[in-house]
Amino acid sequence: MAGPVRGPVSDDLLREVLEANLVIPREGLATLTWGNVSGLDRERGIYVIKPSGVPYDELAVEHLVPVEVETGRVLAGDLKPSTDSETHRLLYLEHAGLGGVAHTHSTYAVSFAQAGRPVPVLGTTHADTFNGPVPLTRHLTADECARDYELNTGRVLVEAMGSRPGGDALDVPGALVAGHGPFTWGPSATKAVEHSVILEAVAQMALHTLALNPAATSPGHLFERHFTRKHGPDAYYGNPDRMVAAARA
Amino acid sequence: MAGPVRGPVSDDLLREVLEANLVIPREGLATLTWGNVSGLDRERGIYVIKPSGVPYDELAVEHLVPVEVETGRVLAGDLKPSTDSETHRLLYLEHAGLGGVAHTHSTYAVSFAQAGRPVPVLGTTHADTFNGPVPLTRHLTADECARDYELNTGRVLVEAMGSRPGGDALDVPGALVAGHGPFTWGPSATKAVEHSVILEAVAQMALHTLALNPAATSPGHLFERHFTRKHGPDAYYGNPDRMVAAARA
Amino acid sequence: MAGPVRGPVSDDLLREVLEANLVIPREGLATLTWGNVSGLDRERGIYVIKPSGVPYDELAVEHLVPVEVETGRVLAGDLKPSTDSETHRLLYLEHAGLGGVAHTHSTYAVSFAQAGRPVPVLGTTHADTFNGPVPLTRHLTADECARDYELNTGRVLVEAMGSRPGGDALDVPGALVAGHGPFTWGPSATKAVEHSVILEAVAQMALHTLALNPAATSPGHLFERHFTRKHGPDAYYGNPDRMVAAARA
Amino acid sequence: MAGPVRGPVSDDLLREVLEANLVIPREGLATLTWGNVSGLDRERGIYVIKPSGVPYDELAVEHLVPVEVETGRVLAGDLKPSTDSETHRLLYLEHAGLGGVAHTHSTYAVSFAQAGRPVPVLGTTHADTFNGPVPLTRHLTADECARDYELNTGRVLVEAMGSRPGGDALDVPGALVAGHGPFTWGPSATKAVEHSVILEAVAQMALHTLALNPAATSPGHLFERHFTRKHGPDAYYGNPDRMVAAARA
Repeated sequence: MAGPVRGPVSDDLLREVLEANLVIPREGLATLTWGNVSGLDRERGIYVIKPSGVPYDELAVEHLVPVEVETGRVLAGDLKPSTDSETHRLLYLEHAGLGGVAHTHSTYAVSFAQAGRPVPVLGTTHADTFNGPVPLTRHLTADECARDYELNTGRVLVEAMGSRPGGDALDVPGALVAGHGPFTWGPSATKAVEHSVILEAVAQMALHTLALNPAATSPGHLFERHFTRKHGPDAYYGNPDRMVAAARA
Repeated sequence: MAGPVRGPVSDDLLREVLEANLVIPREGLATLTWGNVSGLDRERGIYVIKPSGVPYDELAVEHLVPVEVETGRVLAGDLKPSTDSETHRLLYLEHAGLGGVAHTHSTYAVSFAQAGRPVPVLGTTHADTFNGPVPLTRHLTADECARDYELNTGRVLVEAMGSRPGGDALDVPGALVAGHGPFTWGPSATKAVEHSVILEAVAQMALHTLALNPAATSPGHLFERHFTRKHGPDAYYGNPDRMVAAARA
Repeated sequence: MAGPVRGPVSDDLLREVLEANLVIPREGLATLTWGNVSGLDRERGIYVIKPSGVPYDELAVEHLVPVEVETGRVLAGDLKPSTDSETHRLLYLEHAGLGGVAHTHSTYAVSFAQAGRPVPVLGTTHADTFNGPVPLTRHLTADECARDYELNTGRVLVEAMGSRPGGDALDVPGALVAGHGPFTWGPSATKAVEHSVILEAVAQMALHTLALNPAATSPGHLFERHFTRKHGPDAYYGNPDRMVAAARA
Repeated sequence: MAGPVRGPVSDDLLREVLEANLVIPREGLATLTWGNVSGLDRERGIYVIKPSGVPYDELAVEHLVPVEVETGRVLAGDLKPSTDSETHRLLYLEHAGLGGVAHTHSTYAVSFAQAGRPVPVLGTTHADTFNGPVPLTRHLTADECARDYELNTGRVLVEAMGSRPGGDALDVPGALVAGHGPFTWGPSATKAVEHSVILEAVAQMALHTLALNPAATSPGHLFERHFTRKHGPDAYYGNPDRMVAAARA
């Protein structure tokens, strides 16, 4: 099933998407077969995503499903893509900057989604990655659940992203679907699932912080400082070449 | 002790029940020797269950205890079945669809059982598997504790299942015994203990959700959608053949 | 340092005490060098205890310190016994049924000790082992802290045990020192630390239960049933020979 | 890059700092590349610190960055030091007793920092290491965030340490930066990160204790006893030679 059939997608992308999916069980972001990560080759208009219902400890490059972004058509293989594939697809269609999308059922992020609360910015751990609260979508209507449910899930995510004035999709690379759980994204599959890891960590901290102080808050200038020291033209965190190397390792 | 003595039960069932029991320590659903899983050969009228008090890291196929469903008679071996064996037996007798039963002392599910609260449906992680709240039994009376305690535990579980109008045992494949802990079930031992894993995950999410929002709720149409995309005639989640293969691997 | 010097203590006891101490890091009951377990040879009037401040991953039989119960005199070796040794000693002196004592800094049991609350009986997981609440000592006075602090810690433990009317030390094999943490005991070092494992599990469940329902309670007849199915003349849990074998393995 | 270039720093210090950094992922004190530990050679006026953004599982002695304490000048190598390096430097400049500094994003310590609460002394686990509450800094002003942010973070830490009357930096070897997280220190890198481990453990216990009893408290004489049995001229905990050996192993 490998090779020519899947011709259009590079081996690098396949390997990256496989590795990114395996972060989910390794970091405890979901149990069983839950969760999925995809990575996009925007030039070719194809994304590669985890198949539906395959256990992580069996998952191999051959199982990954290539999907045409424009149409949702499966391009190779005999496995179905993740049921959430259409949500990924809509995010790629709507936001040109996305190269990867991840969906998990991580405990604390799901708890905020179920509680109907965005994850507030309570500290620099959050601000290092998310330049504002991690937003919460509205609930889908009965009609939106009945038809094109997964595509509509993508639509309410896009709505929630847009509700941040002037927001770029990568400024706050994640959101919570109300009553469901987190989606995160980034310039690559690697970064997308890394944002899932971070979102879970900051959601856990936020829950404990609110238990200690329901009115917890910190000044915005602290958070701006942290976001800008990692992102944008004045960033000075990290040794960029090494980080890319690590992501590719 | 293996082979002919245990003749009536297939090696496949024995191996499946062993594997299903080993999920309990691996997933942290109980410490020490707590917990037990059984699997049923309904045609032969025999279920196989973990012995009482044997440590998981010693447990082998030879230790599993075959029990006659109709009578509770141990059919082979010199080990006693789990003390909870009679609870399993009653569930098999009362619900024709069950092929496996699991009992754990997982932290969060037990906490709901001790708190006297069903696990409410607060999100799609729950609704993917449990088509409604995970019910709570009434407390056993002093008489029910004094005689046939374990059989009576099965009876209150059956009562609690029945309290869901029109409910099928597999629609909500688990319940909490008040002041005790969770029992889950399924078409096989593998599925029964998988439901224990899921119940613990959703119980933890529910506890955190209620801490963030004691009045948390989401619309029922979202949950229906999730249950039906995984179950029933219109299910479209998973790659069924692969999942069966994985369960048998 | 081994062999003749330590002559009076059997190799079996040394190995059992070593193994029992290693349960502490393996089960996450303490970090760093915290915690200690001892085992008693009552006939010879000697107990063997972990040395003070030795990391668990270096701990070997040769490091264990034999102490005379009657006097507290160290009988061999050049390592100091755990600073809590005198607390163990007092428990052995006061309760003839004890063959092992364990002390940990496990998170949830410590939290109850710091909160000044006994661990209430909220479910069968607790009742299977502890036939009543796990009691809390009174605070030590300034004088009791200033002189013979560790011995006085043993004394308030004995007081707390005695406050249960008609109690046998093994009916509720553990207690919390106020502002400090748990001590547990049993007929052997193996059982003593097993009770530490169980206490931590039930303390965690109790904390979550109280979060879900501050007034949680269940009928006493359920708990009696569970304690008596595991303990006393009518016990029917477990396959006793195998369990002893496992403890000795 | 090794050897002569880095000449002034001993191999022992490099190895200790590497090991101390690896405690962070092993003990779960941070995810991804978060956190950093440094160790000081006070005689030579050089400290060695983790580079910025290098994954822990790639980290090697060659990546560590030597920095001149007086000036902040990087003395060798082509990697940038941790972004928090200036905070470490200020602590070394201001407190002559420090030989190591650690910074983590551990969940519970961060939660107190975000909640704007010091970690109160609620039990002996805390008092064994921290002779008083773990203080919280004031928030940095917008100006302090805009210029020399990391140096100013060190300054508010020093302020917070000084607010303890008569305090020695090693009496309470750690503090929380408001809205950010914990810094800990000690006579060596090994001890600095050990204090991070302990701070996280006691912060978790404190959070659970406050959930069980918001007014929890214990008498100061108990805590004094515990601090003095481990520290100062009358200390009697541990077998000092072995502990040093272990720290060097």
